[in-house]
Amino acid sequence: MTNRIRLADLAQQAGVSTATVSRVLNGKDTVAPSTRKAVLTALDLLGYERPERLRPRPSGLVGMIVPELTNPIFPIFAQNLESTMATAGYTPLLCTQTAGGITEDDYVQMLLDQHVAGIIFVSGLHADSSASLDRYNRLDELGIPVVTINGNQPDIAAPDFSTNDAAAIAQGVRHLASLGHTHIGLAMGPDRFIPSQQKALGFSEAMENLFPGEPAPIVNTLYTVEGGQAAAAQLIAMGCTAILCGSDIMALGAIRYCESSYLRVPDDVSIMGYDDSPLMAFTNPPLTTFRQPVRSMSEAALTTLSTLMNGTAASPRSLTFQSELIVRKSTGPCPN
Amino acid sequence: MTNRIRLADLAQQAGVSTATVSRVLNGKDTVAPSTRKAVLTALDLLGYERPERLRPRPSGLVGMIVPELTNPIFPIFAQNLESTMATAGYTPLLCTQTAGGITEDDYVQMLLDQHVAGIIFVSGLHADSSASLDRYNRLDELGIPVVTINGNQPDIAAPDFSTNDAAAIAQGVRHLASLGHTHIGLAMGPDRFIPSQQKALGFSEAMENLFPGEPAPIVNTLYTVEGGQAAAAQLIAMGCTAILCGSDIMALGAIRYCESSYLRVPDDVSIMGYDDSPLMAFTNPPLTTFRQPVRSMSEAALTTLSTLMNGTAASPRSLTFQSELIVRKSTGPCPN
Repeated sequence: MTNRIRLADLAQQAGVSTATVSRVLNGKDTVAPSTRKAVLTALDLLGYERPERLRPRPSGLVGMIVPELTNPIFPIFAQNLESTMATAGYTPLLCTQTAGGITEDDYVQMLLDQHVAGIIFVSGLHADSSASLDRYNRLDELGIPVVTINGNQPDIAAPDFSTNDAAAIAQGVRHLASLGHTHIGLAMGPDRFIPSQQKALGFSEAMENLFPGEPAPIVNTLYTVEGGQAAAAQLIAMGCTAILCGSDIMALGAIRYCESSYLRVPDDVSIMGYDDSPLMAFTNPPLTTFRQPVRSMSEAALTTLSTLMNGTAASPRSLTFQSELIVRKSTGPCPN
Repeated sequence: MTNRIRLADLAQQAGVSTATVSRVLNGKDTVAPSTRKAVLTALDLLGYERPERLRPRPSGLVGMIVPELTNPIFPIFAQNLESTMATAGYTPLLCTQTAGGITEDDYVQMLLDQHVAGIIFVSGLHADSSASLDRYNRLDELGIPVVTINGNQPDIAAPDFSTNDAAAIAQGVRHLASLGHTHIGLAMGPDRFIPSQQKALGFSEAMENLFPGEPAPIVNTLYTVEGGQAAAAQLIAMGCTAILCGSDIMALGAIRYCESSYLRVPDDVSIMGYDDSPLMAFTNPPLTTFRQPVRSMSEAALTTLSTLMNGTAASPRSLTFQSELIVRKSTGPCPN
């Protein structure tokens, strides 16, 4: 049994008149595409089923390969890419990995078997300076359009869409220095990832600039809660009063370490995250972090992939994005 | 350039001897499957690439259709299903929706075009009492094995794996009553979803049992942060000192409403979530909630789907799972 659709509810949700809703539902083509989309979105949000004639005919499979879904930045990338692709008429296939499970290369082979039109790699092996690049060259030879997000490996020809990690971390150092901190540490995942290397570079340069000759300790563990916990323990033992973390979930681990050591955040130790993944405004304390412009990055990556898939790209360009400093409550003045 | 693999690191991570690691890497078949898996997991965790000969040959595409990825319970279901499928040798295809984007039916068609071996629906239209069931009957006619997670629509033949929502909410009411609360409200998403109906049923029965004749207010909004905020406003205006929410992110919205109204959680108002999605231990205050047994549900769903795909199922059964009450700090004694 299908509920009858209430035009007034739809009109209110979409911000249009009931007459317009009716025109869209009846498939009239006298409606602007943006209005049509607003009405379809209202249908979905209010949970009505779309009438058959309004279902888009998706064209072209596009693979999205993400490392995993437990770090909340990856679901949000996947969600934004999916939304962008659906709007553009592509069918997204999301390939997510787990330790011990299916690898990036397995997924690529599967996507090729399914005659995929293009592939977006998010924080994949392209971001790992120790990984072989043959896989990307092979896709290039096969003529499969590829773009990468986060981890601009310079030896890959595919256009890349990454945040300027070095600049963000340098801004983080300045934020902490302005609060009076001089003993600042960097907690990072494995050093072989290009974003790790970029963050370390930005950190070392900013520290050398602000505190020449002083120690600028960097601890490499894993990009997990437990990794953050372990790195914080080491950095605090070295005397750090402020810790920049390579990801938000590392920062949550660092905060957990402080709690277990009866150190208050930010009264005793300041902690900064990276990504501004969802829900970071709800943590205790709300996390000061850097927001990756996920939507802009997703849109730019898909627009470029789309021109490559249409064969119309003159010279596709990589783009660098700026992360924004979001100051919440996990950073504060240096204790005396 | 590929880094040389350090046997000692792998052996330590996998908890086996270097000789065993060496046997696995050389593809010897004198190693127990569980040991082999531990070494492969260690390879992945430490970020080494798997030698070609150790790559599994995936067999059979299995579609997972989830509603969206912004509610953190869905990425965790996807991640668990992916991991379970990879272990079982299937290739998971994750289909995620956004408002205005690709619908469940579009994805089903795409999966059929790709000759999918089976489909798992998580909180899909099968959970919507107003949705047409024709789509599931059609898959049944086509002989495509299907299982559903959360939302046991009684008229669908496919085996279902859901939590006992009514029992959990009733336990929540008893938890709050034991803290002295008598004015308890339920904040839910739309009423047409079967889990919403089950939660409302459990709530009404428990309230009638503990406080016969007293009001047991239920407010239906949306399963989002903003939905929780709006529902909390209404329930608190009605005099509730404790609010059970239909999802964790609704509970975060309810907490946000309390903050903006200068009400302390849990001193003035107690708030409970539902799902125990990732990071809920890190919220302010840490959230009291119900944990869905995501891994057990995923494994049971895939095991049953697997027997259906092999054509060996005598009579596949639905299973009901119990959510666990996780008491953290968002619930406390009723204020005077």
